[in-house]
Amino acid sequence: MSDSDSDSDSGSRPDLDFVQPWFLGPAAENDRLLEDLVVEFLRDHAYWRRNFHPEDGLRISAGARHAPAFLDVQARMRAELHRLSASLKRAVPFFHPRYVGHMTGDLLIPGLVAKLITTLYNPNNVSEEAAPVTLEWELQVGEQLARMFGFAVDDDAEPCAWGHLTSGGTVANYEALWNFRSVRFYGLALQAGAREVGFDPGPVGPAQKELSAYTAWELLNLSIDDTIALRRDVARHLRAHHPPPLFHAFAAAVRAERIESLGTAGFFLKHDLAPPRVLVSSSAHYSWAKGMKVLGLGTAHLVRVAVDDHMRMAVSHLRDELDRAEEGRIPVLAVVGMLGTTEFGTVDPIHAIADERDERRGRGVELGLHVDAAWGGYLTSVFRRPDGSFHGQDEVAEGFRHFPSDTVYRAFQALPRVDSVTIDPHKLGYVPYPAGAFVARNREVVDFITQEAAYVFDLGDETTPRPRRETLHNLGQYILEGSKPGAAAAAVHVTHRVLPLDSQGLGRLLKLTVRACEIFYDSVADIQARLEGRVRLCVPFEPDSNLICLAVNPWDNASAAAMNRFARAVFAHMKVEGHRPVQVKTFIGSYTSLLKSTLPGDQAHRILGGLRLDPDTFRLIPQDPAREADHLFILRHTLMNPWLLAGPDERSYIDHYWDWLEDVVDDVLAGGEWRQG
Amino acid sequence: MSDSDSDSDSGSRPDLDFVQPWFLGPAAENDRLLEDLVVEFLRDHAYWRRNFHPEDGLRISAGARHAPAFLDVQARMRAELHRLSASLKRAVPFFHPRYVGHMTGDLLIPGLVAKLITTLYNPNNVSEEAAPVTLEWELQVGEQLARMFGFAVDDDAEPCAWGHLTSGGTVANYEALWNFRSVRFYGLALQAGAREVGFDPGPVGPAQKELSAYTAWELLNLSIDDTIALRRDVARHLRAHHPPPLFHAFAAAVRAERIESLGTAGFFLKHDLAPPRVLVSSSAHYSWAKGMKVLGLGTAHLVRVAVDDHMRMAVSHLRDELDRAEEGRIPVLAVVGMLGTTEFGTVDPIHAIADERDERRGRGVELGLHVDAAWGGYLTSVFRRPDGSFHGQDEVAEGFRHFPSDTVYRAFQALPRVDSVTIDPHKLGYVPYPAGAFVARNREVVDFITQEAAYVFDLGDETTPRPRRETLHNLGQYILEGSKPGAAAAAVHVTHRVLPLDSQGLGRLLKLTVRACEIFYDSVADIQARLEGRVRLCVPFEPDSNLICLAVNPWDNASAAAMNRFARAVFAHMKVEGHRPVQVKTFIGSYTSLLKSTLPGDQAHRILGGLRLDPDTFRLIPQDPAREADHLFILRHTLMNPWLLAGPDERSYIDHYWDWLEDVVDDVLAGGEWRQG
Repeated sequence: MSDSDSDSDSGSRPDLDFVQPWFLGPAAENDRLLEDLVVEFLRDHAYWRRNFHPEDGLRISAGARHAPAFLDVQARMRAELHRLSASLKRAVPFFHPRYVGHMTGDLLIPGLVAKLITTLYNPNNVSEEAAPVTLEWELQVGEQLARMFGFAVDDDAEPCAWGHLTSGGTVANYEALWNFRSVRFYGLALQAGAREVGFDPGPVGPAQKELSAYTAWELLNLSIDDTIALRRDVARHLRAHHPPPLFHAFAAAVRAERIESLGTAGFFLKHDLAPPRVLVSSSAHYSWAKGMKVLGLGTAHLVRVAVDDHMRMAVSHLRDELDRAEEGRIPVLAVVGMLGTTEFGTVDPIHAIADERDERRGRGVELGLHVDAAWGGYLTSVFRRPDGSFHGQDEVAEGFRHFPSDTVYRAFQALPRVDSVTIDPHKLGYVPYPAGAFVARNREVVDFITQEAAYVFDLGDETTPRPRRETLHNLGQYILEGSKPGAAAAAVHVTHRVLPLDSQGLGRLLKLTVRACEIFYDSVADIQARLEGRVRLCVPFEPDSNLICLAVNPWDNASAAAMNRFARAVFAHMKVEGHRPVQVKTFIGSYTSLLKSTLPGDQAHRILGGLRLDPDTFRLIPQDPAREADHLFILRHTLMNPWLLAGPDERSYIDHYWDWLEDVVDDVLAGGEWRQG
Repeated sequence: MSDSDSDSDSGSRPDLDFVQPWFLGPAAENDRLLEDLVVEFLRDHAYWRRNFHPEDGLRISAGARHAPAFLDVQARMRAELHRLSASLKRAVPFFHPRYVGHMTGDLLIPGLVAKLITTLYNPNNVSEEAAPVTLEWELQVGEQLARMFGFAVDDDAEPCAWGHLTSGGTVANYEALWNFRSVRFYGLALQAGAREVGFDPGPVGPAQKELSAYTAWELLNLSIDDTIALRRDVARHLRAHHPPPLFHAFAAAVRAERIESLGTAGFFLKHDLAPPRVLVSSSAHYSWAKGMKVLGLGTAHLVRVAVDDHMRMAVSHLRDELDRAEEGRIPVLAVVGMLGTTEFGTVDPIHAIADERDERRGRGVELGLHVDAAWGGYLTSVFRRPDGSFHGQDEVAEGFRHFPSDTVYRAFQALPRVDSVTIDPHKLGYVPYPAGAFVARNREVVDFITQEAAYVFDLGDETTPRPRRETLHNLGQYILEGSKPGAAAAAVHVTHRVLPLDSQGLGRLLKLTVRACEIFYDSVADIQARLEGRVRLCVPFEPDSNLICLAVNPWDNASAAAMNRFARAVFAHMKVEGHRPVQVKTFIGSYTSLLKSTLPGDQAHRILGGLRLDPDTFRLIPQDPAREADHLFILRHTLMNPWLLAGPDERSYIDHYWDWLEDVVDDVLAGGEWRQG
C-alpha cells in the first residue's frame, strides 16, 4: 500500500462515517432501515385510502381473495414478478464501488423511499389539479437548485429565477434552446405586429426610443432582461392609452409574427436573417447536436469551439468564432459552457465566457449563455456555505491536492452570471431516474413560451394578472413535456431537505468522489512504472472533477487500430454482458473515444506522443483498417461511489483496480489477438 | 334505482370479479397482497447486493447504525419522510370511483410492484450497457403495442414495426413529427449530395429512374417505405460499384444537405420550398401546437381541420384542406388522427383518412399518417382476440348498447394502415408516470434520425452491418430523450404479460369503463327530466369511448358568461383544493372549455340551442364580459375506474353522482352569485 493511499484513507474517515446512513450500501448493510421505512409508509398510504369515504365500504369483498380465480391471478402475478426479480439479477451493480462505469451510483435512501412512496399516490406534475403537493415541491426544487447556483429566488427580486424537473438533461438542453429562441426573436415580432396594426407605443426599451426606430440587429441583440422590459413597456403603454380592441388586435398580430407561428423558415425568410448559431465546446454532449436537429436549427449552425489541453473550451477560439459571427451579422443564439463534460468531467471557463458576453453586450451584441451542468451542477454544493455564501478557494481546497484549480473555482463562481443551467439530479443527486432539471435566471421567460390547454388551464373570467408564483402552478404551460411524475419531484425535494446543497450537506458526500479521482490520478505514475515494458498508460486530460480516462497501448505498438483492438480487449473484461451473471465481473467500467474529427491537432500530437503511436495511423478516413483508425478507444472511469477509498483489506478499491488491470493487461498481451486486424 | 342500472350491474358482475385482484382497491382492500410482494422483492434485491463480491465484507460496519450521528441522520430521514407522507394526504384520490376527473386511475398491482422493485436497481434504458434487462423489455413492449395495433413485428416482415417508451404522449407526438421530417426531406438531400460529388447510381427508387431525374415534388412525395427503399438502392449501387472514398464523400455530402444539418430555414430556402403543413382535427391535444413551435415548423402551418357533430375530424374538410395544399404544391408532412380526444374521448375516422391517403398516393401525393392514441390506444385490446385476429363488430358490441359505432369500429380496424401511433401506458395502461410510447410501422425509419455518442455507442472496428434488432439496443441513438427509467419499461412489460393486450386481458377491464360511460350517457335523460325547471343539461358530443362532458345552464339563463359562472361554481364543489383535506370532497371531476375560436358554427348553434343560450353572448372578443364569453365552461368526466358500476347501497357511483349533482345545482342556484358578472 502506498503512503498516499493510507494518508487519504485516514483523512476521509469522518466523511466516510458521514455517508454511512445515506445509502442501502454495497452489501445492503442498511436493509432493515430501508425496509422499515418502505413498509411504514406503504401502510400509511393504504390507510389513507381507507379514510376516503369509509362509508362506501368495500369494493373488493373480504372473501374475494379466497376465490379460486383470485388466487389464480395472484399466483400469476407473483410468478411474473418473480420472473422480473430473477431477470434483474442481471442488472448492473451501479451501487458498488467496483462499478466505475457510467454516471450512475447508489441511491440515497431518503430520495429512494420518497420516490417509492409517492409512486403509490402517482401525482402528475403537469398541473396542480393532478398534484396539489408535489407540484409545489417541484418548484421548490427549482428554487433550491437556483439558490445553489447563486441566482436570486425571492419573489421581489428582479430577475427572479425558477426551475423545474425534466425527464433528463437532454430535454433540459432542448428547453434552453427553445427558451432562447422564443425570447431572442420576440423583439422583431413585436415590431412587426405594431407595424401591422399601425400602433407605436412611444419611447420604449433600453434605448427609450420608438419601437419602429429599432433596427433588426438591435432587436436581435437585446438581452433576455431587456426583451422582457421592452414587452412590459409596450403592454403598459397599450393598457394605459388604448381601448381593448386594439389590445386584442395587436396581441393577435404579434402572435402571428412570432417565430413560433411562422416557423424558423418563415421567420428567417421574412426578416432576411441568417440562421442563428449555437456555440458549444467540442467536448459537449451529443444532445446538443440532437437538439439542433430536433428544433430545426440545423447542426450546420452548431459551432464546435476547440478545446485546450485540459479539454476545456479554448477562449481564444471562442473569441474568433464570435468575431466571425459578428462580422457576418449572424446572431449567436447561445454559447453553451460545459460544467463537467460527460466524457472527462472537465469544466469550461464559464467566467471567461461570461466576460466575453459582457464585453460584447457593451457594444450591442448579445449572446445567450447556458451551462450544461448535467454532470457537474451538484458539485456547486462543495463551494457553497450553509449560509448561502461562496467559500474561498483555499477553504474549498482543504483536503484536496489539486481541486479546485483556478479555472474550476472561477467557473463555479461565475454561475450566477449565466442565463440558464441544466442539471441532472439522477446523476450526482443520487436519485432514481428520471430526474433532470432546467433552471433559468429570469422566470419571466415563461411568458414567451406559454401554452394554453382548455381542459387543464382554466381561462378564467378574470382579467387581472395573477402572481407569477401562482401561474407557475400551471406547469405544463411552460415546459416542453406534458404529464410528468410527481414522484420524481418528491425524491429530489426530500433529498435536498435532508442533504442540503452546501458543503456540509451533499457537498460533503461529493468531496469524497473528487478525492477518489485525485487519488486515482496521482497513482497513475506508480502504475505506469509498474507496467513499464508492457504497456504505456496515459491520462489524456487531467481531471477537473471526478471522472478520469485512461489510454492504454502495448509498449511497442505504433498503430492506432491495434491499440484500439488491445484496449477493447481489455475493456471486454470490464464490460456488462447481459447474458452472464454479474458476479463474474471484478470491475465494471465504461469507455469513450477520442475522435480524429474533433480532437484538436495539438492535443492529438500530445496524446499520440505519450502513447508512442504513429500519427499517420490516426486518420479521418482510414485506408487500412487493420492499422489505421479514426478514433482512439480509451477507458473511462466515473468515480461517484463514496466507498472507493475504503476497500477490503484496508486498501482502496483504486489499488484493487490497478492490481486487477495489471492481470488483465498481461492476459490480453499474452493472448495477442489484438495484433491481427 | 333505474332498471337500466340494475341490468348493467348484474351484467358486469363477472367482469367486476375479474378485476378484483388487480388493484390495491378503493379501500386498500388488497393491502396485504401489495405489501407481501413489495417486501419479498425488496429483500430479494438486498440479498442480490450481498451476492456481488461477498468477499469484500461490509463497507458500513455492523456497529455503525448504533453511532449517535447515524441515529441522528436516521431520525431526520424518518422525520422528513413522515412529512412527505403527511403532505401526500392532500394528494388526489385518483384510485377511487368518486374520482372522475383527469386521465388517471388506480394502478395495476403487477405494474406498480414492477416499478417499485425495478427502481431499486435503477436501470437506465438509454443503452444496453446501463440496462441489460429492461432495455430488451422496452423493445418487447414496443412489439406488444405494435402487435395490438396490427403491425407486423417479425424480423423478416417488411416493414417490421418497432416502438419504445417516452416520458409521455407529448414527447411521442414530437417524435412523430421529427420522424416524418427526417424521412420526408431525405430524398432531396440524397439527390443534392449525389449532384455535389458527381455520382449517379443509375435507375433507383419506385420509378426506377436516374436519381437526378426525380423532380423535387416527386422526392417530397415519396412514402416512408419508398424513401427507405430508395436509400437502400443507392447504397447497394455505391457499395457494389464504387471505392470507399466515394462512399465517404457521398455520405458526408448527403449529411450536409439534410434538413437536420441545414435547419428548416436553410433547407426550405435552398430548395425554394413552401413550409410543410401538418393537419390535425380541431379537437387535437395542445401538444400538437407545442410540437410545431418546438420543432420550428410554426403553428401557422398547423391546419386545424373542422370536426363534425361527433367531435370527429370531418373528412370533407380534410379533403378540402388536402386539395388546397396539393394545388399550392405544399407538402403535407402529416395528418394526425385522434383516437380518443383528451376532452371528449372521441375517435377520428382513421379509415377514411387512410383512404384519402391511399387515393392521393395513387397520384403521387404523399401524406404521413399518425394517430394520437395517447388516450384510446389501449382500447384496441377490446377489439383484438387472444389469437391476434380482429373481432367482428357484433362480437365487440356484446354487452354494450352503443359501442362500437361503425366509425369507431372501422377506425380501430384501420390502425395497421397508419405510419405511427402515440399511446400512453400511464393512462389506460394503469401504470405509474412516466410512461408514454411511440410506435412506428417501419422500424427502418431509425436510420434517418440516428445519433452517435462516442461514450455510449461504440463505433466498433467492424464494417459489417449488425442486425436491426441488435442496433436498437443502442436506444438513445434513435429517440428524442436520453437517459430514461428502465423501471417504466418493467412496469409496462409486466402489466402486458399478466394482462395481455386482447379482449380477454386488459380489454376485459377496459370494457367496464366504456360500459360505465354508456350508462352515464343513457341516464342523462333521467336527470334532465329530474332537473327540469332548474337547469338544462346537455352532452355536447355523444361519447365514443369512456369520456363524457356535460354542459349545465340555469333554466332561464341566456348568457354564456353567466352560464360559465354557474358551471364554475358547480365545478368548485368537485375541484381539488390543495389546502383542504380531500375527505371533504364527495366527487372530484374536471372541466374543459368549448372555444368560440375552434368550435364550428353548426356545432355552436346546436349546443347553444340545446342550452337556450343567446348566440350573441358567445363571441371571439367579448365586449361585455359580464354577459359575453369566448368559451363555454363544461364539466368533464373521465370514467376509467372499474368500480363505477358497483357503488355502495347496491347503486352505481353514477347514480350517486346524479344525486350529488342535484344537491350542488340547487345550492349554487340558491346562492345566486352566478347572476352577477
